Amino acid sequence: MLTNNVKGTHDIIGEESNGFAYIENLLRQICELFAYNEVRPPVIEHSELFVRGVGDGSDIVRKEMYTFKDKADRSITLRPEFTAGIMRMIVQNKLLATNELPYKVYYNGPVFRYERPQLGRYRQFNQFGVEAVGNNSPEIDVEVITLAYTILSSLNLANVKVLINTLGDDDSRNAYKDALKGYFAKHLDHMCPDCHSRFELNPLRILDCKVPEDQEIVKDAPKMKDYLSDAAKSRFAKVLELLDALDIPYEVDDTLVRGLDYYAETVFEFHYTSKTGNDYGAIGAGGHYDKLVKELGGPDAAGVGFSFGVERLYSVLKDDDLFPHCINTPVEVYIMPLGEKAKVMAAQVASELRLSAYRTDVCFEDVKLGNMFKRAERKGAKVAVIIGEDEVAKEEVVIKNLATTEQKSCPLDKLIETISEEIGNEVCE
Amino acid sequence: MLTNNVKGTHDIIGEESNGFAYIENLLRQICELFAYNEVRPPVIEHSELFVRGVGDGSDIVRKEMYTFKDKADRSITLRPEFTAGIMRMIVQNKLLATNELPYKVYYNGPVFRYERPQLGRYRQFNQFGVEAVGNNSPEIDVEVITLAYTILSSLNLANVKVLINTLGDDDSRNAYKDALKGYFAKHLDHMCPDCHSRFELNPLRILDCKVPEDQEIVKDAPKMKDYLSDAAKSRFAKVLELLDALDIPYEVDDTLVRGLDYYAETVFEFHYTSKTGNDYGAIGAGGHYDKLVKELGGPDAAGVGFSFGVERLYSVLKDDDLFPHCINTPVEVYIMPLGEKAKVMAAQVASELRLSAYRTDVCFEDVKLGNMFKRAERKGAKVAVIIGEDEVAKEEVVIKNLATTEQKSCPLDKLIETISEEIGNEVCE
Repeated sequence: MLTNNVKGTHDIIGEESNGFAYIENLLRQICELFAYNEVRPPVIEHSELFVRGVGDGSDIVRKEMYTFKDKADRSITLRPEFTAGIMRMIVQNKLLATNELPYKVYYNGPVFRYERPQLGRYRQFNQFGVEAVGNNSPEIDVEVITLAYTILSSLNLANVKVLINTLGDDDSRNAYKDALKGYFAKHLDHMCPDCHSRFELNPLRILDCKVPEDQEIVKDAPKMKDYLSDAAKSRFAKVLELLDALDIPYEVDDTLVRGLDYYAETVFEFHYTSKTGNDYGAIGAGGHYDKLVKELGGPDAAGVGFSFGVERLYSVLKDDDLFPHCINTPVEVYIMPLGEKAKVMAAQVASELRLSAYRTDVCFEDVKLGNMFKRAERKGAKVAVIIGEDEVAKEEVVIKNLATTEQKSCPLDKLIETISEEIGNEVCE
Repeated sequence: MLTNNVKGTHDIIGEESNGFAYIENLLRQICELFAYNEVRPPVIEHSELFVRGVGDGSDIVRKEMYTFKDKADRSITLRPEFTAGIMRMIVQNKLLATNELPYKVYYNGPVFRYERPQLGRYRQFNQFGVEAVGNNSPEIDVEVITLAYTILSSLNLANVKVLINTLGDDDSRNAYKDALKGYFAKHLDHMCPDCHSRFELNPLRILDCKVPEDQEIVKDAPKMKDYLSDAAKSRFAKVLELLDALDIPYEVDDTLVRGLDYYAETVFEFHYTSKTGNDYGAIGAGGHYDKLVKELGGPDAAGVGFSFGVERLYSVLKDDDLFPHCINTPVEVYIMPLGEKAKVMAAQVASELRLSAYRTDVCFEDVKLGNMFKRAERKGAKVAVIIGEDEVAKEEVVIKNLATTEQKSCPLDKLIETISEEIGNEVCE
């Protein structure tokens, strides 16, 4: 117990940690190019927020929340997703009144769901996403889709398919729900228990049921597109026109219904198939919402957002060998002191190199020179700096280029100049 | 309730979020220069880990942990600090056997302590720190101190004082604890209840007592330096020699005792006084430990680490106006479409500019041009791109330099070239 992590959590270390940093840096950079700013809501919120914001009929709220009482008997929940917390933050801090609209933010951090742990599914995992709140236009829906698409392209994911659908406005959705109820009422006896409660809470959810027998019944259900109001149709047409203008390839999928209650109008998913034909399904998803801010006590404001699972992106990039190799070779200069006096000089030389922005490591362990060279190689160092008692006396070092194996003496006052000649100032991209 | 954050948590948004990103980027960069790699242990751990790793006599474990039972009746705790989790990670993943030693890592993320909320003190706050594990040498203690000192210098904190002390090896500390017990036994009747339990659990802790009457008694207590073994003395002398060689200013403070049970040998704190004379006290601290890895079921390996509170660093930098102003002006180009057709072209122009790495925002709201200019100014944009129906027809845009107020027409195929002439490719540093 003492030396085990909690079931369903994982330590992110080594290559995986480098991969996460690579992904997150890229996502951040692109969000900044789109003028989205980072926000960090807390990990813990009042449980009521998620019951209202995510929906008390959702699997997340019904089965998967980490909920507990704090020492003052408040019901606290570890966030299962970011959107509800960000809406709470927006309402509480009156951010729609004090910022240009839409208020555009991105987020990145851990979320918690008590699900059955499976390969690549964790109880604590990381989500990255955006929300643009306070503008109801199709242009903003498309901006958010474009942002997500740009992120995936920048990660070199070549076969990304944008699936898109509209859930219409209130009128459309109410008409469609009635039609679904009428249809499913006739088949309900043959459907799973979850579908019985979905039928009561939100019949749209039945369309997402994974039970094969139910999927057969779903196939012949009424289609959303036949119940759209004229306003909803023309809004969706505008979304598609803008995607065309931006050369973003998409497929309209009229079976696409996102599992959360708050979505309205545009919903979308990003599907990926690897070079080798492996279909990863949806690696990110999002949509437009009309009532979420108001539901949580704020003004009547629409929004749109998406989220990616960072673990998911990591495993896709790793499987397809899409990480730049340089992210795993962090050391440029490796310093090898031989003896106690040399260690003092090694510490000084390391400081000088680091201040000149060379990623530098020192071997302070008393191992043989041959062993030090092996370590330098494993760390991917380009240059070794060797310091023996002679070098200390003469105030110089020996610099060995580990690629060419050439080595030369170098006086201390020529150190940075010489290192720069050997390895330049390459940037890992 | 619904629209309130949990007491003691806070939303990090706007300027504060930009400040956090600035601090964390800088800390990361410097850790990478020192060849430390990032690790991300989970937010939740088995409660037992902290009871053993932080110490069941500590205030953190006794009073401040967020502990709850999960659905499978496991006792889970939101981490109150990182070190115990990182040691668990090292032991569980056998990282000392599979990496060069010392194994050097840094971390950054939220920690949770149920303390009384006060100005600048939160129940969820962020810690950044490092651990170097598996090498017992004074050189590594100094490397870690140098890393922390370099971070503070890079943040432009000019008056940083390193306070340093040694707690000696086991022999020294046992002799000293006996001496303290002998001394405090005579005064215990006049001391606070906490000091009574400290007396039993770890008399070193009494030295940290904040009760004024007890502090008077502490003044005449035996001093650590009089109980140091020869080995401990010579190790500490080596630490100071190395700090001298690296020009790191320090003060030996023989009253400095860190509050956690696991520290041994070198301990240190970083104190800061602002330009205006405001004494912030310790803004970061750390030390060497001998038994922590073994205590948690791992091999016999020493380590050394430090941590900073990110909220603390933020408030110091903010009070002293040490943030570069450019971190709060994220938009370079602001696009102003007038009419529906112009909005489509605006989306295309925005995509092109973003792909060329210009931070670009578009006003998709139907407001007047004057209002758009006000928005551009508030966002700190350098250039406005104006698109009316005429421009759409002629496939051109109007580019206005917001500093010089000069404006000119520009054909779409000269867009990037012209923007680059107007604002170049400045980097915010």
